Amino acid sequence: MMRAAVAVGAGAPLALQDLEVPEPGPGEVLVKVTACGVCFTDLNLMRGHYPFARFPVVPGHEITGVVTAVGPGVIFPEVGAAVGGQFLYDSCGHCDYCVRGDQILCPRKVITGIVADGGYAPYAVMKAGFVTPLPDGLDPVAAAPLMCAGLTAFNGLRQGGIRPGSRVAVVGAGGVGALAVRYAVAMGARVAVVGRSRRGEDAAKALGAELFVAAQESDPAKALKEWDGGADLVLNASPSTEAATATLGGLAPDGTLMLCGYGPEPLVLPTQPMILNRLRVGASPSGSPHDLRDTLAFSVSHDILPDVTPIGLDEAPAVLDAGTARGRSVIVFP
Amino acid sequence: MMRAAVAVGAGAPLALQDLEVPEPGPGEVLVKVTACGVCFTDLNLMRGHYPFARFPVVPGHEITGVVTAVGPGVIFPEVGAAVGGQFLYDSCGHCDYCVRGDQILCPRKVITGIVADGGYAPYAVMKAGFVTPLPDGLDPVAAAPLMCAGLTAFNGLRQGGIRPGSRVAVVGAGGVGALAVRYAVAMGARVAVVGRSRRGEDAAKALGAELFVAAQESDPAKALKEWDGGADLVLNASPSTEAATATLGGLAPDGTLMLCGYGPEPLVLPTQPMILNRLRVGASPSGSPHDLRDTLAFSVSHDILPDVTPIGLDEAPAVLDAGTARGRSVIVFP
Amino acid sequence: MMRAAVAVGAGAPLALQDLEVPEPGPGEVLVKVTACGVCFTDLNLMRGHYPFARFPVVPGHEITGVVTAVGPGVIFPEVGAAVGGQFLYDSCGHCDYCVRGDQILCPRKVITGIVADGGYAPYAVMKAGFVTPLPDGLDPVAAAPLMCAGLTAFNGLRQGGIRPGSRVAVVGAGGVGALAVRYAVAMGARVAVVGRSRRGEDAAKALGAELFVAAQESDPAKALKEWDGGADLVLNASPSTEAATATLGGLAPDGTLMLCGYGPEPLVLPTQPMILNRLRVGASPSGSPHDLRDTLAFSVSHDILPDVTPIGLDEAPAVLDAGTARGRSVIVFP
Amino acid sequence: MMRAAVAVGAGAPLALQDLEVPEPGPGEVLVKVTACGVCFTDLNLMRGHYPFARFPVVPGHEITGVVTAVGPGVIFPEVGAAVGGQFLYDSCGHCDYCVRGDQILCPRKVITGIVADGGYAPYAVMKAGFVTPLPDGLDPVAAAPLMCAGLTAFNGLRQGGIRPGSRVAVVGAGGVGALAVRYAVAMGARVAVVGRSRRGEDAAKALGAELFVAAQESDPAKALKEWDGGADLVLNASPSTEAATATLGGLAPDGTLMLCGYGPEPLVLPTQPMILNRLRVGASPSGSPHDLRDTLAFSVSHDILPDVTPIGLDEAPAVLDAGTARGRSVIVFP
Repeated sequence: MMRAAVAVGAGAPLALQDLEVPEPGPGEVLVKVTACGVCFTDLNLMRGHYPFARFPVVPGHEITGVVTAVGPGVIFPEVGAAVGGQFLYDSCGHCDYCVRGDQILCPRKVITGIVADGGYAPYAVMKAGFVTPLPDGLDPVAAAPLMCAGLTAFNGLRQGGIRPGSRVAVVGAGGVGALAVRYAVAMGARVAVVGRSRRGEDAAKALGAELFVAAQESDPAKALKEWDGGADLVLNASPSTEAATATLGGLAPDGTLMLCGYGPEPLVLPTQPMILNRLRVGASPSGSPHDLRDTLAFSVSHDILPDVTPIGLDEAPAVLDAGTARGRSVIVFP
Repeated sequence: MMRAAVAVGAGAPLALQDLEVPEPGPGEVLVKVTACGVCFTDLNLMRGHYPFARFPVVPGHEITGVVTAVGPGVIFPEVGAAVGGQFLYDSCGHCDYCVRGDQILCPRKVITGIVADGGYAPYAVMKAGFVTPLPDGLDPVAAAPLMCAGLTAFNGLRQGGIRPGSRVAVVGAGGVGALAVRYAVAMGARVAVVGRSRRGEDAAKALGAELFVAAQESDPAKALKEWDGGADLVLNASPSTEAATATLGGLAPDGTLMLCGYGPEPLVLPTQPMILNRLRVGASPSGSPHDLRDTLAFSVSHDILPDVTPIGLDEAPAVLDAGTARGRSVIVFP
Repeated sequence: MMRAAVAVGAGAPLALQDLEVPEPGPGEVLVKVTACGVCFTDLNLMRGHYPFARFPVVPGHEITGVVTAVGPGVIFPEVGAAVGGQFLYDSCGHCDYCVRGDQILCPRKVITGIVADGGYAPYAVMKAGFVTPLPDGLDPVAAAPLMCAGLTAFNGLRQGGIRPGSRVAVVGAGGVGALAVRYAVAMGARVAVVGRSRRGEDAAKALGAELFVAAQESDPAKALKEWDGGADLVLNASPSTEAATATLGGLAPDGTLMLCGYGPEPLVLPTQPMILNRLRVGASPSGSPHDLRDTLAFSVSHDILPDVTPIGLDEAPAVLDAGTARGRSVIVFP
Repeated sequence: MMRAAVAVGAGAPLALQDLEVPEPGPGEVLVKVTACGVCFTDLNLMRGHYPFARFPVVPGHEITGVVTAVGPGVIFPEVGAAVGGQFLYDSCGHCDYCVRGDQILCPRKVITGIVADGGYAPYAVMKAGFVTPLPDGLDPVAAAPLMCAGLTAFNGLRQGGIRPGSRVAVVGAGGVGALAVRYAVAMGARVAVVGRSRRGEDAAKALGAELFVAAQESDPAKALKEWDGGADLVLNASPSTEAATATLGGLAPDGTLMLCGYGPEPLVLPTQPMILNRLRVGASPSGSPHDLRDTLAFSVSHDILPDVTPIGLDEAPAVLDAGTARGRSVIVFP
């Protein structure tokens, strides 16, 4: 038996329960969880924002650990391997998207910690094809948020067409945003951060941003437009769609607004400026296993790790309830 | 002196006036106009939809003709050359966009027939760098709408990332849309057309569409989704933004909605489906001179020309007033 | 037991032998072979050109058939499904290339009919992840060569960066080349064929080529350069590397020479013309499962099938020995 | 009159002569030269390696200076502007390559310092469309080599498809190579340097290389292959084609060998490894004006400037004669 945290239903608090340690079936591995990040998505799950959630479920999709057993037919990874588990739990394996290695687009994808049990427990079963080897030398506690926040930031920049020298504005410098700033700097971009208040300015500049815009004080669109003609890419890492669209006028011609974070409100976009300036709006849903592999390799070679606050499993309900520890708290298992 | 049609102000009817034949200055050419297409944009100009319009102005930006004189410093094109004139009249020439050959994105671009005099007149002055040689064998009357409607369709498909085998849905099969269908078919895509009523079905299928969806009868999103999993690219060639967004749910994962036509209403997009399926929304503003060159070469090698109704200049006011001849009527000069 | 054709060693003739019908293991399927194309590669195998070959081996990697049994753990494809088998038999599944869906680049890839038994037999075992569903309506006999010749041609054009309106020259219009011509035309390219003698001219033009160059009569580089400035892409589908390099001077600036076929001689390229014109030389080794899926879908929607000559298994030794039926003869099983 | 250095013929030494200060014609500007880099190309010119050279000619194509006069019709740049002049002196302006902003591919391009007079003189006339504004804060002496060596390195990496996290090997860490290392590091790549002897190791690592291979001591192909599977991109910045091809076996699957430097010997490439691993070989000829603009902006934002040795014009003949100062010596005008 193992002590796990369980989401029992929409609106209900996280419950600590004793569950049986699961066993890996064919094509599956059993992972002894080292650490599991607490993601904003977990909070949304508890609030009932995902109609496709399967309650009760063990949340958590920013998982690092060690393979302790493998099911029938599994050749890779081997027992003893350090691995990461991500948002994407499984996919059909044979649709056009799966076959081309873009499993995150599979119409039948299954999400870790929402539909399948995740990492708020000392053991988790995962699909062998959806765990990613951790590169040597990666601290499994600090690295846990890379499995979702890091992947989302890294892949959002790629999907948004970042290039060396691009002017990239990151809206919101929380868990995803702070990593996006560091990745973008390491990719050779120039970076601005759009925050709400001046509070985040020093932190943003310490991460490598050359410009900080406090949305409470100045119009982000105007401030970005004055930044050598506008941003080539805006990556929204805030939980507000409106904060994203407020930057649209700050895009340079041929610019892209990329949603990694978003709120419940719809995107509302004026058409004439979009067409006159050939703007694009995209959205990026974390990524596929090959994206995570690239994220981890890049993080290691550029020494990019988030600052995390280790917590015990018992603290998880309070942290989630507070709803503020986004992307920073990491449950560490003994 | 020459007889020309002039837009004298927002809301006023098109006026026939006698103007002086213009003379080409440095870097300019004088073109004897053979034909000029009547574009939906011309109607929008008359209605006052472009706050940057400069009245009085000679409308018309789908121009074919022959160079009859060149100003100082012009080496190309030469007198006697058959050329086309497009929506883009001039640009600054030295911003980042101009330098990389993407003049349509220049912040100081000047638009033909809205800010500078266009082709509703037997002679027009154009910038030498913004006229495009007509390929041999191109009928200058039928080809006139290629200068804008053709360019917009061709370039919209390119900007939208069309690939061989893509499932492409074209919304609205008028001037731009009918050409988009033919270009998409010639590029090896599979094509669907979304129209309002069944009326356009036979025409769409004759152009090569394999599917026709009548929006009045069935939900376009649902119909497209059932089309082998959805459209990889929706190109909106209708004057309605809502008609475009009604297809969003019909995009396949990784799909793109491209606005070539649009209405005054804003784009309203639900975020969750966009992010779960990694969708993109883009917009394409006709194109740059190199895009027109590619459009014309492709049209000739694939024998793609619109059906046009030749009219005299005297008929232009009535045709514009009727507001229905979109992309089909072409003013022919004797 | 089943009657199969076996390559028993380098230089030895193809032998007809009675083998046991194989059984599918975990992750494998048993396919009742409908047809198997005779590919030039099979001839190279018999001649001992592949040092990594594993004799004895059943040749053949252009396989169509029906799944008659599946091994443990196989969910897809199902028994009864019509499928194709390709050059790539298996790969490691967890290197960077496999994870991103580009298994053809796996350093540990295994080749059908050279290292693993292929389709010169009425039954073949294949890896479930490496068989491709046949689209509805595809004739399994005529389609057999699509599994390698078609894939190589289609993917070579893609890897070579073909675009609508590209000028594409295909060197050698045999099995791969004739399909390349048809694919390129269907993708909206303009196509030239470079053959040895005038004999192939009519056939090339019937496939859609606008230009035919007989290398015996005129310098291919010169002839291509006069073709509106040169070819944007040359795809070598001939078994001669020299025939490919003879076209290098016929590339337009920014052009690409793509090797799909090649001979034993090395590529010898002059550097100054390459650098002055920013030329590229690439090579394309058939493709991955997702490439084959795209190839088949495109072939069906554009009705592209090779002309084939059905033969019985007993005729295979003679056909191979003659060494001329390249890409055309298809072994059909009763 | 002005004192200039003149190449009077193939094989003859550089001559110091008094020439008339040139005057800018229509579309031209007169630049007071601040500095001009001494490039390896200048040495090749003196040796007679360019059959298209026009003797006598003032060499030098790494020019920085200030506009002191403009000819008729020139709007940009203005008198007083700090500008750079590059390898590309002029192009036809209306071929497909010029129209799309890729003037370096124009079949009628004219080369600075080989066909048109360059910067080994206190004044130089340049085409207005081919001078590039220097970003604020760029030291015009140290920046001079960016106009060719920097552009070649930056653009070679781009043309070679560098991506964040790519493993990039630079062959030869002289003028172009040292800049390539720094650009590649700043773009987020991992970098190896292949030199002849161990002498360059410390310098390469100081620039950010993680691996140094001394070709005299160990096989570069083998050493690169052991570097996590091989290089994704090899950029040859050495004057030896053989040094480039010696790395071919060190490319990872899907890898690219990019020639920026080359020797007189042809490229000789084995075909089977190329096709089995889908390798590419490309070549990059400095770049177009938009490429130089991007190079300068990137250099400024990442503080990348070469170490240079300022010399007087009188020293140029001796420096060129020595043939060793490659990419480092910069002629400074008083």
